[in-house]
Amino acid sequence: MRTYTGVLDVPAGLPVSELDTPTLVIDLDAMERNVEQMAAFAAAHGVLWRPHAKMHKCAALARHLIEAGASGCCVQKVAEAQAMAAGGVTDIYISNEVLAHSKLKRLVALAAQLHASGGRLAVAADSVLAVEALAGHVRQHEQYQGPAPVDVLVEFNIGQNRAGVQTASEVLMLAQTVSDVPSLRFAGLHAYHGGAQHIESAVERHAVMQQAYAKVHEVVQVLRAHGLDVVTVTGAGTGTFALEAASGLYTELQPGSFLLMDAHYACVQPAAQQPVFEQALFVKTQVVSRATHHAVVDAGHKSHAIDSGLPMVWNGGAQVQYGFGNGGDEHGLITALAGAELPALGDVLWLVPGHCDPTINLHDAMVGLRGGLLHGVVERVFQVDARGALW
Amino acid sequence: MRTYTGVLDVPAGLPVSELDTPTLVIDLDAMERNVEQMAAFAAAHGVLWRPHAKMHKCAALARHLIEAGASGCCVQKVAEAQAMAAGGVTDIYISNEVLAHSKLKRLVALAAQLHASGGRLAVAADSVLAVEALAGHVRQHEQYQGPAPVDVLVEFNIGQNRAGVQTASEVLMLAQTVSDVPSLRFAGLHAYHGGAQHIESAVERHAVMQQAYAKVHEVVQVLRAHGLDVVTVTGAGTGTFALEAASGLYTELQPGSFLLMDAHYACVQPAAQQPVFEQALFVKTQVVSRATHHAVVDAGHKSHAIDSGLPMVWNGGAQVQYGFGNGGDEHGLITALAGAELPALGDVLWLVPGHCDPTINLHDAMVGLRGGLLHGVVERVFQVDARGALW
Repeated sequence: MRTYTGVLDVPAGLPVSELDTPTLVIDLDAMERNVEQMAAFAAAHGVLWRPHAKMHKCAALARHLIEAGASGCCVQKVAEAQAMAAGGVTDIYISNEVLAHSKLKRLVALAAQLHASGGRLAVAADSVLAVEALAGHVRQHEQYQGPAPVDVLVEFNIGQNRAGVQTASEVLMLAQTVSDVPSLRFAGLHAYHGGAQHIESAVERHAVMQQAYAKVHEVVQVLRAHGLDVVTVTGAGTGTFALEAASGLYTELQPGSFLLMDAHYACVQPAAQQPVFEQALFVKTQVVSRATHHAVVDAGHKSHAIDSGLPMVWNGGAQVQYGFGNGGDEHGLITALAGAELPALGDVLWLVPGHCDPTINLHDAMVGLRGGLLHGVVERVFQVDARGALW
Repeated sequence: MRTYTGVLDVPAGLPVSELDTPTLVIDLDAMERNVEQMAAFAAAHGVLWRPHAKMHKCAALARHLIEAGASGCCVQKVAEAQAMAAGGVTDIYISNEVLAHSKLKRLVALAAQLHASGGRLAVAADSVLAVEALAGHVRQHEQYQGPAPVDVLVEFNIGQNRAGVQTASEVLMLAQTVSDVPSLRFAGLHAYHGGAQHIESAVERHAVMQQAYAKVHEVVQVLRAHGLDVVTVTGAGTGTFALEAASGLYTELQPGSFLLMDAHYACVQPAAQQPVFEQALFVKTQVVSRATHHAVVDAGHKSHAIDSGLPMVWNGGAQVQYGFGNGGDEHGLITALAGAELPALGDVLWLVPGHCDPTINLHDAMVGLRGGLLHGVVERVFQVDARGALW
């Protein structure tokens, strides 16, 4: 349907200088080093890793991670799961509550499809209402259309105070409800602390997570004491995964952002023994207007998300900054510290987005560059398959 | 390419209760009253109106506005112009600087196409470099492929301090540069103050704009004194258009948000004699998790932009609020004031986005409802044609 030249059409071999602006670009060399680091970390710590595809929303990248050793992918929405499955991913975990019948119908059809091809679908739950609605859809599907087994993980609030049940006895009750339903399997615990991921101080982050692990430990004990098999304890993000790995409680890590990184995570002090990841995601932008004390680039907050802060200028040193002010949806204002030179009309700047997940969700495609930002060439284009997949 | 059930597939006649969440919805009754009000206002004040399509990015809505009397549409990007032209809009103004050769090539091809069908393309400029680059592309096109006339409006900074030239003599110099190029027509002045649109106090906003109009008045005098025909003076947004209309200086108004409105514009006190517009854009969302003191809905900032503040809960009175906290990309946290009832698991809420433009840019489609949010039915689906059209 699209009539304009989008980056989906960019041919392999194109020099980076020819890429239109603003375009979302992946430095493939840096990304691949990040993948190697995470694979080595997971192997060394004997944990599974299931990177979160809510970040990249791209089936080709999910498959790339699985080829490097990941056990599958996480998603947040049924529609994201459908997009990943259509792109060849067969082991998918919807790490979020699903309640509406329209969604459960799609979820169960997908579970049947993955099961038939030797794969697996899992989903989180924090209410009896959701488990019973899911059970009803699975029952109906299995009566007429064959097996549609679904793994269910009970979401437990370990301090984020968003979704999740609050106490060990609630987890137990919900786990037993799941276990009583044929074709639902109680698969374990979802214990993720989103709020802790961006605590900048490693010491402070460690202290917060120790409280969380004490809760997880208690719940696992209670479940096992009642004869429930806790196969999976899953959680962690790019800010805390080394702590979950060291806790001895988690069997699976979910970080997503490590793959490409962003300006917000660059401010988070790594935990001890945690690999340091490289920035691999950039917005190429151009100066389209110049005033005496500022330059205007063609990337505003329709090109990069600003929920976690403004982008950083990668090729500006500390002297050139992206400011907010009157930039807005389609423009960015660039200022320079006293004595530093402002970029000229026509100059190219490379921005590091504040937050990778919602930035990628603004783009239909990401351009994979080989050989660096300055002299690289296009190797391939990654379609953002689940862009806008909100349902 | 999409494999999940998207709202593009929603059939006409579907009751609102059946719409999946989160979905972006237009209350068509409210929208059409907004259009009638703006058409009547423009007619009464003898000015053209050219609503900004950067807001809705939808060719069907641009055509709807033109059928109601609008003179065409504004856009910010060449790719947006291409999308509007593909959808049948023939009079398009790119109210922004265009500098890159890749963009100018598309721009000139579009100008030729619109010219051939009796339409017209215009673009803003604030540098000699951009005008000369445009002239080169027009010259090259006309030499081999026939006429591609482009109207050029000189962008003048009236206080926003983003793009635009700073002084009357710079405007004059640039206007003369344009006039010297065959097939470029100096069409007038772009004089928009984005920063003034959201000044909440009508008195304060009026004072800021009076200074801006004094500058516009001076520039128009200088241009006319030098024999230049200032056919168009264009600018204004939903916050200030009544002032531009009353100034006697502007021939054309560009407001876009009036069509659907948002929570941010709801806080802006209308100027005297300005129509009051109704909220017509909503995100339908559902409660998917409940804790003692909050509910979690399935709309986070991948469903609505938060650059201008969080959404308002339309059906919550003043008692129920959308908070940020740990909501994030895919979740929203709903709290209630003391004594008020929190929505229950499964309840539907209607959110008013903080900022309509970047919210629509997150969605592939908007669902047009007839008969209100509570009992309405789907009348039609509007594709967001220029979603992600950044180039």
